[in-house]
Amino acid sequence: MKSSALSQLGQRTEAPPISWLMQLTLDHPKLISLAAGFTDNESLPVDETRELLNEILGSPKSRRSALQYGTTAGDPHLRHLTADRLWKLDAAAEKRFSAAADEVAERARNVRHARRSHPVAFSEIYAPERMLITSGSQQLLYMLTECLCDPGDIVLLEDPTYFVYLGIVQSHGFCCRGIRLEADGIDLSHLEQRLEALRRRGELKRVKMLYLVSYSQNPTGITTSFVKKVAALAMLKRFERAAGHPIYLLEDAAYRELRFAGQDVASALAAERADERVIYTGTYSKPFATGVRVGFGILPKPLLTVVLRVKANHDFGTSNLLQQLLRRALASCRYESHLTELHRRYARKAATMTRAMREHFPANVRWQEPDGGLYVWARCPKPVKTGVHSRLFQSALRHEVLYVPGEFCYAADPTRRKPNGEMRISFGGATEADIRTGIARLGATLRELL
Amino acid sequence: MKSSALSQLGQRTEAPPISWLMQLTLDHPKLISLAAGFTDNESLPVDETRELLNEILGSPKSRRSALQYGTTAGDPHLRHLTADRLWKLDAAAEKRFSAAADEVAERARNVRHARRSHPVAFSEIYAPERMLITSGSQQLLYMLTECLCDPGDIVLLEDPTYFVYLGIVQSHGFCCRGIRLEADGIDLSHLEQRLEALRRRGELKRVKMLYLVSYSQNPTGITTSFVKKVAALAMLKRFERAAGHPIYLLEDAAYRELRFAGQDVASALAAERADERVIYTGTYSKPFATGVRVGFGILPKPLLTVVLRVKANHDFGTSNLLQQLLRRALASCRYESHLTELHRRYARKAATMTRAMREHFPANVRWQEPDGGLYVWARCPKPVKTGVHSRLFQSALRHEVLYVPGEFCYAADPTRRKPNGEMRISFGGATEADIRTGIARLGATLRELL
Repeated sequence: MKSSALSQLGQRTEAPPISWLMQLTLDHPKLISLAAGFTDNESLPVDETRELLNEILGSPKSRRSALQYGTTAGDPHLRHLTADRLWKLDAAAEKRFSAAADEVAERARNVRHARRSHPVAFSEIYAPERMLITSGSQQLLYMLTECLCDPGDIVLLEDPTYFVYLGIVQSHGFCCRGIRLEADGIDLSHLEQRLEALRRRGELKRVKMLYLVSYSQNPTGITTSFVKKVAALAMLKRFERAAGHPIYLLEDAAYRELRFAGQDVASALAAERADERVIYTGTYSKPFATGVRVGFGILPKPLLTVVLRVKANHDFGTSNLLQQLLRRALASCRYESHLTELHRRYARKAATMTRAMREHFPANVRWQEPDGGLYVWARCPKPVKTGVHSRLFQSALRHEVLYVPGEFCYAADPTRRKPNGEMRISFGGATEADIRTGIARLGATLRELL
Repeated sequence: MKSSALSQLGQRTEAPPISWLMQLTLDHPKLISLAAGFTDNESLPVDETRELLNEILGSPKSRRSALQYGTTAGDPHLRHLTADRLWKLDAAAEKRFSAAADEVAERARNVRHARRSHPVAFSEIYAPERMLITSGSQQLLYMLTECLCDPGDIVLLEDPTYFVYLGIVQSHGFCCRGIRLEADGIDLSHLEQRLEALRRRGELKRVKMLYLVSYSQNPTGITTSFVKKVAALAMLKRFERAAGHPIYLLEDAAYRELRFAGQDVASALAAERADERVIYTGTYSKPFATGVRVGFGILPKPLLTVVLRVKANHDFGTSNLLQQLLRRALASCRYESHLTELHRRYARKAATMTRAMREHFPANVRWQEPDGGLYVWARCPKPVKTGVHSRLFQSALRHEVLYVPGEFCYAADPTRRKPNGEMRISFGGATEADIRTGIARLGATLRELL
């Protein structure tokens, strides 16, 4: 039997780079992994989770329903709490933004027409009826992409971007166009060039969305400013006539709640007409516990209808027990107090990492001090390469330290070469001692080569 | 903006019938639903789950790992326990079967070449390395079908079958051929006719699998005999040369552990060469708690590799907390003791239902006494129709009782008309009092029409 019974998707889907990195970790037991996107093990909310589950399973009101099927869209109360929380975050961020914008007349002019009249209309945008709960936000990214794109369709995304999303894209045979990143998000003129080029070649009808990891981005740590989100949304809108259909802004806010310095930024939901074009995805897995896979999304209503149908086929609803856990964590404020502790710990771990980098890395390796998320993105000077076959990567392995080669985070975009002199280093999962030792080893490796 | 941005899958996917049935339940608050596939609420393992979670989150060994990411394939220990459990079930069932077969020479002759030399070789077939853990078995059905079939491909399945699986098939644009059911599973001569017809028309290359809900089937309650599984497997094999690729037997064993009368039957995994062609999917959600969504599968190795890649894109692993819960439930035997209680309750509820049916239903409505699962499948005499627009369905609604119209459970198969005189009635979720009242109402409705 020579021929495969696999579907095109089955044949196309490649092994994710993460499996290969995990295998390396298993093969090198002494290895310090600064590659894994794991969260901090010590600060996992063990006691809180135990208390919450005892309350849920001890209460005659909730104990049975927590162990029974729920609805496909998810627990209504959890959706309500999530929507309410998001609205408060956005309203506060938007208020700060408006105050700052009023001071700076020029900035205000740029966004004058784009800003929603304050306060953000809760009932329209942040409505539980526009929301669904998923098994981590990853599941939602999968379903959204599956519902919007056909093989050959084009996804616009950041250069670099979240590499597991690239797995979804690769698996389905979608094409990619990378948009350059600046310190405050995508380069808008590059986005415009890309859209113009696609329009000229009649390919705009294949463009369904722009995917942005907008908070403490994985892998760069960059947070997209509200001005840029508003401008990007307006720009996509301008090209819709030529596309012949809506072009969505998919805002992946997975790291929003992991900001430990500076101030939160409003999501694109706070922009004008966000209800029609913004898809917002978030998660409780990273800020609460990665072993508890609960994500959520706010979607334009027609799209939500379709995604819920597809969710019914995927699993007809996320585990009710996990949803009740998050619902009670939110309602009891134990989620909030856990976040405070988490921010304190991540701030310290990030500082430990960058301190060690300043001490051990050659001066011509560049990085930005992270203010959230789990990663530092380091750029090596030319001609140093960081890929899996590079001298640096192999030498780092011999020094028993692992990073994520930057090239994993770049989409296959036929219009440009993948940059290959960067690396993603995570302070999330490793202990502080391992961070210090790992960075010292990586620094020694770099100094050998530079 | 007239044109839709949706993908073909997005445009194709229809609303699941279950949403419509659930809406009816919400619109008629006094309605007794014998439609929902919910499990028994009273026997949910509330205390066991609470104890188990306290143990997990109280133990320094497991408390952090339960709240952290796991691997895509799932917890190795849970896979080991599951594989071991399955092997024991199959070995016991196969032993009973062999003993019976030896007594009946003719039966023995039929399966002589098909039976594996006893005992079943654990290490090859029931290996944790051939297994993955998923978010309910539904997720696995989705991924498997996605990995095997392209739009236009043909899935062979039972007439009738599990209607949520039909949602997956419809959504992806697969075609269906229904195989008639007999009291002990599919009609093998009908399967052969179907395969022959497809071969003659050169369509066999579009056939990737036969999907069987082999234990206390949803919706009919029928259990497929081991002989039929073995014969079906051999038959598929015969047509592989013409197909040009493997044709898999996808055995959905969702209701295996819900058998409350009679004896377990060996799965197709116990047949010869099962490692190459049998895909077995099971779940802990129904037998343990539907709010805890943990399913599993045993797959031929090349297929497992692909499904794991796709799982990495879907969610890179099922919630570790839920996996640890099941792992401890299995290891501590609390799973087994819960099953005993569950069987006792379902046996009683099934008896309550069929007793009420004998009392209230007209004599010419036929059904089979269930020995497992959650459903009774009732056949009305001609010309009574049971569909949503039928007088019966509408009259039942006025009598405040809901069933699943049989036609929902038949695939869209262009080669035959959907039978429309049957109904699925569930004794799973309703209380015994509601079962009695619901059946009395349904009986009154039927008597009015007959």
